[in-house]
Amino acid sequence: MYMFIRNDGRNFDQLRPFAFATNFTKFAEGSVLVNFGNTKVICNASVENKVPDFLIGKNQGWLTAEYSMLPRATQKRNERKSKIDGRSQEIQRLIGRSLRSCLDLSLLGERQIIVDCDVIQADGGTRCASICGGWLATYFAVQNLLEKNIISQNPIKNIVAAISVGIVEYEKNQQILVDLDYSEDSNALTDMNVIMNQNLEIVEIQGTAEHQFFSRQQLNQMLDLAEQSLLKIIEKQKEYIKN
Amino acid sequence: MYMFIRNDGRNFDQLRPFAFATNFTKFAEGSVLVNFGNTKVICNASVENKVPDFLIGKNQGWLTAEYSMLPRATQKRNERKSKIDGRSQEIQRLIGRSLRSCLDLSLLGERQIIVDCDVIQADGGTRCASICGGWLATYFAVQNLLEKNIISQNPIKNIVAAISVGIVEYEKNQQILVDLDYSEDSNALTDMNVIMNQNLEIVEIQGTAEHQFFSRQQLNQMLDLAEQSLLKIIEKQKEYIKN
Amino acid sequence: MYMFIRNDGRNFDQLRPFAFATNFTKFAEGSVLVNFGNTKVICNASVENKVPDFLIGKNQGWLTAEYSMLPRATQKRNERKSKIDGRSQEIQRLIGRSLRSCLDLSLLGERQIIVDCDVIQADGGTRCASICGGWLATYFAVQNLLEKNIISQNPIKNIVAAISVGIVEYEKNQQILVDLDYSEDSNALTDMNVIMNQNLEIVEIQGTAEHQFFSRQQLNQMLDLAEQSLLKIIEKQKEYIKN
Amino acid sequence: MYMFIRNDGRNFDQLRPFAFATNFTKFAEGSVLVNFGNTKVICNASVENKVPDFLIGKNQGWLTAEYSMLPRATQKRNERKSKIDGRSQEIQRLIGRSLRSCLDLSLLGERQIIVDCDVIQADGGTRCASICGGWLATYFAVQNLLEKNIISQNPIKNIVAAISVGIVEYEKNQQILVDLDYSEDSNALTDMNVIMNQNLEIVEIQGTAEHQFFSRQQLNQMLDLAEQSLLKIIEKQKEYIKN
Amino acid sequence: MYMFIRNDGRNFDQLRPFAFATNFTKFAEGSVLVNFGNTKVICNASVENKVPDFLIGKNQGWLTAEYSMLPRATQKRNERKSKIDGRSQEIQRLIGRSLRSCLDLSLLGERQIIVDCDVIQADGGTRCASICGGWLATYFAVQNLLEKNIISQNPIKNIVAAISVGIVEYEKNQQILVDLDYSEDSNALTDMNVIMNQNLEIVEIQGTAEHQFFSRQQLNQMLDLAEQSLLKIIEKQKEYIKN
Amino acid sequence: MYMFIRNDGRNFDQLRPFAFATNFTKFAEGSVLVNFGNTKVICNASVENKVPDFLIGKNQGWLTAEYSMLPRATQKRNERKSKIDGRSQEIQRLIGRSLRSCLDLSLLGERQIIVDCDVIQADGGTRCASICGGWLATYFAVQNLLEKNIISQNPIKNIVAAISVGIVEYEKNQQILVDLDYSEDSNALTDMNVIMNQNLEIVEIQGTAEHQFFSRQQLNQMLDLAEQSLLKIIEKQKEYIKN
Repeated sequence: MYMFIRNDGRNFDQLRPFAFATNFTKFAEGSVLVNFGNTKVICNASVENKVPDFLIGKNQGWLTAEYSMLPRATQKRNERKSKIDGRSQEIQRLIGRSLRSCLDLSLLGERQIIVDCDVIQADGGTRCASICGGWLATYFAVQNLLEKNIISQNPIKNIVAAISVGIVEYEKNQQILVDLDYSEDSNALTDMNVIMNQNLEIVEIQGTAEHQFFSRQQLNQMLDLAEQSLLKIIEKQKEYIKN
Repeated sequence: MYMFIRNDGRNFDQLRPFAFATNFTKFAEGSVLVNFGNTKVICNASVENKVPDFLIGKNQGWLTAEYSMLPRATQKRNERKSKIDGRSQEIQRLIGRSLRSCLDLSLLGERQIIVDCDVIQADGGTRCASICGGWLATYFAVQNLLEKNIISQNPIKNIVAAISVGIVEYEKNQQILVDLDYSEDSNALTDMNVIMNQNLEIVEIQGTAEHQFFSRQQLNQMLDLAEQSLLKIIEKQKEYIKN
Repeated sequence: MYMFIRNDGRNFDQLRPFAFATNFTKFAEGSVLVNFGNTKVICNASVENKVPDFLIGKNQGWLTAEYSMLPRATQKRNERKSKIDGRSQEIQRLIGRSLRSCLDLSLLGERQIIVDCDVIQADGGTRCASICGGWLATYFAVQNLLEKNIISQNPIKNIVAAISVGIVEYEKNQQILVDLDYSEDSNALTDMNVIMNQNLEIVEIQGTAEHQFFSRQQLNQMLDLAEQSLLKIIEKQKEYIKN
Repeated sequence: MYMFIRNDGRNFDQLRPFAFATNFTKFAEGSVLVNFGNTKVICNASVENKVPDFLIGKNQGWLTAEYSMLPRATQKRNERKSKIDGRSQEIQRLIGRSLRSCLDLSLLGERQIIVDCDVIQADGGTRCASICGGWLATYFAVQNLLEKNIISQNPIKNIVAAISVGIVEYEKNQQILVDLDYSEDSNALTDMNVIMNQNLEIVEIQGTAEHQFFSRQQLNQMLDLAEQSLLKIIEKQKEYIKN
Repeated sequence: MYMFIRNDGRNFDQLRPFAFATNFTKFAEGSVLVNFGNTKVICNASVENKVPDFLIGKNQGWLTAEYSMLPRATQKRNERKSKIDGRSQEIQRLIGRSLRSCLDLSLLGERQIIVDCDVIQADGGTRCASICGGWLATYFAVQNLLEKNIISQNPIKNIVAAISVGIVEYEKNQQILVDLDYSEDSNALTDMNVIMNQNLEIVEIQGTAEHQFFSRQQLNQMLDLAEQSLLKIIEKQKEYIKN
Repeated sequence: MYMFIRNDGRNFDQLRPFAFATNFTKFAEGSVLVNFGNTKVICNASVENKVPDFLIGKNQGWLTAEYSMLPRATQKRNERKSKIDGRSQEIQRLIGRSLRSCLDLSLLGERQIIVDCDVIQADGGTRCASICGGWLATYFAVQNLLEKNIISQNPIKNIVAAISVGIVEYEKNQQILVDLDYSEDSNALTDMNVIMNQNLEIVEIQGTAEHQFFSRQQLNQMLDLAEQSLLKIIEKQKEYIKN
């Protein structure tokens, strides 16, 4: 791997500055504003005392996620849509699966946690930011249930975090990068999202060759890079966990 | 008028603390986070180089507004709607009319300003906050056009601000209040929104008897109270205006 | 105020000829065809033995209104819409609020009155005509319930009527007018709808500066003019009330 | 065929009283209120200076129809629908085909006639009434084009009329009836709509066994009865035709 | 009637080769692939243990049909529609009525049979093919209920079949044809669908003059031709009936 | 890895019998019925002489895919949906990306290939079958363009194929399997779809922990198994390629 300076001065394996602002809004059981660089997402976790129809009477809970962008989260304004588009569908299903994987749903009772991820500024990596922030919002919502004695055992069994990795071409060399911003993402040859838990076990992996196929070797290099970065994010998430 | 202390300790004629955070998001030509107490609205003004069909070739611009709430802006989560509901329609039409009234549209050229008002926390008075913040976002978007020499003359001819006034019943007396929060608003006998310019000329007035009719005399008392408050808001808006 | 002859020869304070044709259709519990000049609206009040979800078990009734235009009610044909547009939403919510204000809903039992206002010819003032005709249709529907002993006490406590007033410019003078027809309405500087009861208490007031702000003094002149006209309409509505 | 007195006293081969009120609304190029007994339909024919996409540049016109019911046209109120239901689709396609059959579309130029059939009271036979009234509305719209010299030759080549016939069971006998009202229609064994021109040539025939199959012989008896009735309706339509 | 050879070499009274492939898919209670020449329709009959709302508690069953085309069933690809179009509505209502006519619904219990007719290749006559194939799929679904002792008596009382007949113009003569393919259908002067049972009693008849009116005499000729053809189809359907 | 016999007698690394029936329907430029065991999908590739808006004037083509199931493709009938659901959105976007990856779009000219994947029987692995069959349908559509000299150079640069792999638990052991049928898929701990080209370069990889996280080691075992199977499918696809 050769020398390569990214537009914003980061090294290939460097995350953008990221942070979680907690209690961002007043009413949600868990509310977090997460940012990775210029990407900013409001993650609100709401608890409802009912479950989807297919779970009624099954004595377990559920978690679902919704993902949306404010019209002017992006450089060019997007119209509000009367129905959710394919890309958003894909993303919110991914967020939901990832967050459910860290829960023992039977400990939640017949309750549903809805994690609303509303992007107020988009500069690449919104789905990964939503998973990281959504996990923390879910954690706070669950704490709220525990403190009010609505549930007695903590259903959260794992921390999950997500990061994007990809391959870009620079002066005819292929370079692997982590945490791509919008300008990098739109030129990437390959784009991969990796979601793992605190033991670096895989929750979900989605890799797409956008302009050029990639090899098993490159897949492994991207996974190595993702693992390092996920450990840093999870370290930060751990700071919010009560003893 | 007799003595009356409001839940949050305000006097009957006292506004909640209010503020405008400017440059709230990065991409919109004008971006303001406005709050009146716990009510918080992101107002993003976007400029587009096209006008609605009915204005094509008429050599003038347009301004339109869209209003929406995040699902968990409220105490109880609201579902995302596939189509805009009647209340939101009414509100965004009001915001649009109010902001258009302060513009000389012919000085804007064939351009449209879209003001997105997204409520992230709702505690009463969201439409009035949207108009106050939306005016400032529009002002910044217009400054942006002037600075880039896209237009040469300032189309903004007036400042507009909006405030709610209402009548509540307290120990069998009817009491007039300004800037009602959610708990006051939901029990009000009468609810009125007053939109005026810096000369206290009327842009729009909408008064509704929710539970009891009101008299011409009460109408005038409410207007007097609104006028005092609007002057305070306009004073703050003026601080952002360049010399 | 100076001399001014309107297109159709009316004085500034003169209503168009108006009338209520009762029992206009056969099935509705109350059915009225109302006209103000060329504006014609079918107002059908239907009684249903159920209330909206939010009122179930609350031991009270409800009234709601729906407003629509036949495609060729207007000079140019409008397409049938798959969803209700913003203007119609606003209007039907106004009609509903106005008609509810005259009812003691607890005397209605768990019943809903739906007032359908279908405009068959539109020449300005359709929302005001709908409120006047809708009140009478509601009155007949309630009489029907009383005659059949379905309810024992009359829930109608007030008469409501509505009228438009506005300001037009004529030879550089501003002139206040009542009951604007379409040609007057589309050129008005200000447009205001005033809904009052038989004691001239205010039910709702909605005034909009369309092209020019208006003053508190003009507001009062418009209200004075509306009051005179509303008394004439209410006098006619009273003729239909049984002793 | 044995003796049989219908609920409303008609003979089996007797039409309900029917009439056409012309110039019913002010703006449509042709406007007719048609009634057959208690069935009342407003038929408005509008002329537009454009044709559907598939006809652009083909140097011919088009006619289309839309059919709808006011919510309280029926004994029980129907909700307004966000999309047109199957029954209405079927009916408006039938009305459109029937009215197109009497036109030489090439004489209309690149224009479209839209015939809106809005049922204000429904007591059986609404589609047949719509065709009869819609033909007359179309005739007036075409006269309007001729009088204004927009077209030079009359594109209307035929008169069309429609009537329902059916088979009901009465004291174990099957009885053929014409112009069924709602109570007869809902109990009919067979329901058939016959649309013919002034020479008794067939435009469309739709017969459905609702509860019992019918024979070729019964088909012929129903057609004979329809022919007599259609001649009476066409005689009335002819009264409106200018020399 | 004079000599006339059709494009595909058929005589005027000759059906296209037709066949029923049974057990076409694995899961449906009755599954048939029917073809008439190049027209191919998958007819799947599904049994559900519930009835539409209007039949709940009435101790009888129901049958309904849905009709759709694959996007590339036709020469030019059609877009998938978000709502069913008018033509498909008309067709599926016809299929449903025709198949219901052969059932004693009270013997079905509170069950619904849904017959899905999905056209995979369209070359004219898809609605008639759907009725013929749909009947057979319904028959198999009912056999399945009988074999599993879910019902004890066979609710199928009749066989129904459907065929198209029409009038085309050929060298200035009008020629009656049966089983029109797409090229014949799109040029037909008249198009008629005839649905009959095994006794040649009429279930439904729909005849439309597309370009020219037709006479009672032609109607009778078309019905004679339809009868011959329907007997051939019903003979084939009978081969699948168990003794 | 220990001994394990699958329900249908397959070994853990054994594909279900699979086949491609070509020219399945008559009108599509490329038409293939693909089956993997009981999973059956009609893949029709249609060529249109226009591209999506975002590509107009860019001198290149496009490929998009649509995925749908017949209502009774499954054991329980699914209702036809008025809008595409999230799962189908995800699948058709995956099919589209995978098939685009094998094309040089600039050699296609301003044309779009639409690949309709309609599942007529679903028993697991429908998205992978759609990609395999869709590739072949695309190949035939491109051959058709070459044979008609509409394009001069073959834009297909690679073969792509797809297969599912997963982890199931059997007697407390975790077992990796290839080509899961529905019963295996619904109990899998992990489900992964692997799409590769003929050189075993990765097009897309999507792995999801459904009930239990998985390790990097298991990821590699699944990829090894997928590679073997994809080579077998690609071998079969090659049989259809002209010399």
